[in-house]
Amino acid sequence: MGPGPSDVNPRVLSALGRPTIGHLDPQFFMLMDEVKSLLQYAFKTKNDLTIPISAPGSAGMEACFVNLVEPGDKVVVCSNGVFGGRMAENVRRVGGQLILLEEEWGKPVNPEKLDALLSKNPDVSIVAFVHAETSTGVRSDAEHLCRIAKNYDCLVILDCVTSLGGIEVSLDEWKVDAAYSGSQKCLSCVPGLSPLSFSDAALKKLKNRKSPVNSWFLDLNLITDYWSGSEKRSYHHTAPVNSIYGLHEALIILKEEGLERSWDRHRQNHVLLRDHLEGIGLRFIVDEPYRLPQLNAVSIPDSVDEQAIRKSLLNDFDLEIGAGLGSLAGKIWRIGLMGYASNNGNVLYCVNALKEALSKNS
Amino acid sequence: MGPGPSDVNPRVLSALGRPTIGHLDPQFFMLMDEVKSLLQYAFKTKNDLTIPISAPGSAGMEACFVNLVEPGDKVVVCSNGVFGGRMAENVRRVGGQLILLEEEWGKPVNPEKLDALLSKNPDVSIVAFVHAETSTGVRSDAEHLCRIAKNYDCLVILDCVTSLGGIEVSLDEWKVDAAYSGSQKCLSCVPGLSPLSFSDAALKKLKNRKSPVNSWFLDLNLITDYWSGSEKRSYHHTAPVNSIYGLHEALIILKEEGLERSWDRHRQNHVLLRDHLEGIGLRFIVDEPYRLPQLNAVSIPDSVDEQAIRKSLLNDFDLEIGAGLGSLAGKIWRIGLMGYASNNGNVLYCVNALKEALSKNS
Repeated sequence: MGPGPSDVNPRVLSALGRPTIGHLDPQFFMLMDEVKSLLQYAFKTKNDLTIPISAPGSAGMEACFVNLVEPGDKVVVCSNGVFGGRMAENVRRVGGQLILLEEEWGKPVNPEKLDALLSKNPDVSIVAFVHAETSTGVRSDAEHLCRIAKNYDCLVILDCVTSLGGIEVSLDEWKVDAAYSGSQKCLSCVPGLSPLSFSDAALKKLKNRKSPVNSWFLDLNLITDYWSGSEKRSYHHTAPVNSIYGLHEALIILKEEGLERSWDRHRQNHVLLRDHLEGIGLRFIVDEPYRLPQLNAVSIPDSVDEQAIRKSLLNDFDLEIGAGLGSLAGKIWRIGLMGYASNNGNVLYCVNALKEALSKNS
Repeated sequence: MGPGPSDVNPRVLSALGRPTIGHLDPQFFMLMDEVKSLLQYAFKTKNDLTIPISAPGSAGMEACFVNLVEPGDKVVVCSNGVFGGRMAENVRRVGGQLILLEEEWGKPVNPEKLDALLSKNPDVSIVAFVHAETSTGVRSDAEHLCRIAKNYDCLVILDCVTSLGGIEVSLDEWKVDAAYSGSQKCLSCVPGLSPLSFSDAALKKLKNRKSPVNSWFLDLNLITDYWSGSEKRSYHHTAPVNSIYGLHEALIILKEEGLERSWDRHRQNHVLLRDHLEGIGLRFIVDEPYRLPQLNAVSIPDSVDEQAIRKSLLNDFDLEIGAGLGSLAGKIWRIGLMGYASNNGNVLYCVNALKEALSKNS
């Protein structure tokens, strides 16, 4: 019950162990097509380029920036946590001109500030932000932020690593141009894959680049030749066949439950956890309307040795919860209720374990 | 029995399905340390930076070039197949000055030509080549080529994707500075990880870079903070936990057998296959001293519909063999005898299936 990897559904673990077939086997091509269509369902998009990148979420993030940002492009990154900071680092490394819109950690990105910034910088071509900040448990209003970016004709890059499957993500309705996620959060698959989706406008920007993409491994011009639905697929790299078996199974599980029911379950279990945690005096660091149900960040009471508590949970209760990152290190815990792990039993187990650990260590 | 992914040992498939634990769990750190030490055994090196990159072999290749080559650096790539060509593409994208030493496909890299080239270009700082070209089945004499590169004070980048575990690889003895491999060839693990090793000299070049590494995901300055054996590990990206369970098991299997015995087994099964294939009139495209036992490339007889044969093998015999790539497409088959798949039974099964398919389709 940390910030991810979440507990993996046994069906996914079992799918992982199926015999490996070739990455150019016609049977595997059929599986790839199913994965594409299941990812389109999960992302709520018709984007044809909707595929898993063969590496963790950080590589999905890099794939967006390295394909869409050319040297000199002006890019606004709205940063309110660790992963916004990582986006900014990506812009720097790819040679973009970074405009950083910083927000206090634990607060959502502020739409008015974005509007004001874009009105003063009409040559910005890309806006990027994190939908669900895993470092703080805050949800930004993606729909609103996308609307503003679109008013200024900007492409939008959206980090959906922790949101996908846990709260609403609607790429087409919100007009997101490039989105990436991770397999190991609310999809409850093993870590190692990054679902990614590009709109037609994003593809157009990619096709019209003046300079080559500086990564060969993440060059979507080449990757799409392998993932395209056509008969004639070109080998690019060896796909992580078994991990894709796992993702396929995880997405089938999501579709069986249904997106809306999954979001609902995440909300209900969050409410249950919230009531219990507040009952033992723990406070959420995020204001109620912006709390992520799948990532519950609470302040650590003074006088509590937070490392001792986490160690006791891990050793005595086999239970992992997350520590704070960056400026929140030592100040918060992050309790994940993601995907398969978001259930009633886990909430009660966690609360009871936490109570015991707190009473033993105080 | 294609050019990889090879058939995965059931012990590895079973390890993959173990419950996922956190990438910051102390138990996982212990596993990481074991993987490092097992990889040092496999690569025959004491290099401390010997780790799996969290993505396929192509990302391991990119990690070497993106960390070691700065814009303007003169790099010699010796290319005698598809993967040498990919190395050259990496040098171009990272802004290096490429000097391409091309050799006919199916021939090993020529040491005399490398020597002559380096003597004419004293400002070359890096030499890169492929040890075992998966596209043609040829082995280049890595020891000899490294010795020449060292005479000119060059760093050496070595592609060991198909060699590691199947033929001798001795990084320290040969003085290789950066090597990468793939999990899915002679290690018989699932595809998706790229074992990598950097020498002290390579690390020094990395630490003294004037420009930042242009990939965040592959920046070894950051990755080593997570993989270092120290108490204080820094989170970089979420490691592909279950794939690393698989690699761990695959490396234990290799160590149980012993490197030398594994090389020996690969050689013996190759000889058996060679005798049978030559018995039915198939000819190897590589001269005997340079043939890879794990990747057997044979010419397709005139009048044979090669696609029909491969389709028949796949559909009637559940057997995959590889087609030719690039200029060898339609001209050769590539039969893998890699890792777990390199055994007597597979050789006989393959030869009999091929005989039947050839007689049915001629």
